[in-house]
Amino acid sequence: MFSLRPSRRHFELEMKNLTDGLLAMGRLAQERLGVAVRSLIERDPNLVAVVIAGDDDINQFHLDIDNHCFTLLALHQPAAVDLRTIMAAVKISSDLERVGDLAVNIAEATERHIAHPPVMTLGEIPRMAEWAQAMLRDAMAAFASQDTALAQGVLARDDTLDRLKTEVARELVSSMLHERRTIESAINLILISRHLERVGDHATNIGEDVIFVVAARDVRHHVASMS
Amino acid sequence: MFSLRPSRRHFELEMKNLTDGLLAMGRLAQERLGVAVRSLIERDPNLVAVVIAGDDDINQFHLDIDNHCFTLLALHQPAAVDLRTIMAAVKISSDLERVGDLAVNIAEATERHIAHPPVMTLGEIPRMAEWAQAMLRDAMAAFASQDTALAQGVLARDDTLDRLKTEVARELVSSMLHERRTIESAINLILISRHLERVGDHATNIGEDVIFVVAARDVRHHVASMS
Repeated sequence: MFSLRPSRRHFELEMKNLTDGLLAMGRLAQERLGVAVRSLIERDPNLVAVVIAGDDDINQFHLDIDNHCFTLLALHQPAAVDLRTIMAAVKISSDLERVGDLAVNIAEATERHIAHPPVMTLGEIPRMAEWAQAMLRDAMAAFASQDTALAQGVLARDDTLDRLKTEVARELVSSMLHERRTIESAINLILISRHLERVGDHATNIGEDVIFVVAARDVRHHVASMS
Repeated sequence: MFSLRPSRRHFELEMKNLTDGLLAMGRLAQERLGVAVRSLIERDPNLVAVVIAGDDDINQFHLDIDNHCFTLLALHQPAAVDLRTIMAAVKISSDLERVGDLAVNIAEATERHIAHPPVMTLGEIPRMAEWAQAMLRDAMAAFASQDTALAQGVLARDDTLDRLKTEVARELVSSMLHERRTIESAINLILISRHLERVGDHATNIGEDVIFVVAARDVRHHVASMS
């Protein structure tokens, strides 16, 4: 056998670049989600505009990470944990890109929401937002530190977010039925609560991918069927 | 070099199994979406129940296809079009799994919708449903036949679906404001129109993956920025 050392060192550097890129993309997605949530809570059209202006950076990360994964697979023959990490990276980058899209969706609904006078409180929505943001933060931290316990903790919280969403919808529908002037705001808040729930779903996907990378087993759907 | 022939034949068979599995998963996702749409149009609680009962088969396909891709990458050193096909398969199976989830979401909203008397027409929603279903069907046909023109046709239709969604929302909000008794139905129809729009997004993703496989170029985000 010829020496694999230089190529191996190069490969390890490339793998580190890949995970660094994914972590940077994660920070960007979290930041955009945070701005979208703040735009809602502070009713700030400037923050809305910042989010709606676009997420070219996140989209660029998505393309770059995909290309990077393709190149790593084509040029090296990654095995075991490296191969699992690359497969996870392809998926996690899709999930983070969707989180970026959801931040835009939240800002768009906020734009319509704040076009009306503040006729109602946000109810449990700020709590949903905190919950979804914490899940995403922990999922990315679990990826960074390969911490399956932290990842499991993300999975365990998805049901609560789902329950909050149902609670929010019930309260908002009741408000619409009793006060006609709340209708337009309430619809947009229902949509926002759905977008936040979807952020939790993507955090859950990432948590599952972390467990797949570290533990080499697939926890998807099994968890869902127990819940 | 030792002969690669037996291994190559085995690999080709495995690749065919992979694409066959993906096409079967696609048919299943289309079927479940079709039943969800029919449950809405026919106000049929039995069809609702069929969809809500679960999509274990789609989830199983998702796991199997992922595992298959992992094994192909680990045991063979796929290159060029094979490697692109495997990467696309990982993504397409995620998209199809989400379409299955969206069918459940549509059935859940239909369940709430038909719990109220039929106070309003579905407006443009059946047209949105046809549009989304045709996009998904064509995206999978484009994958089956590696037809980039067909895939481009899917991408080109996403804007129309988006416009229909906005139109539907405007009409439904106006109905809620004028007729209190339509509120609960209208909310669920708004959610359904959003789910259908998401089906179109997943069909678009699949179309982009087909173009990536065949043409080895990445059309994502470029298309979005032109639209």
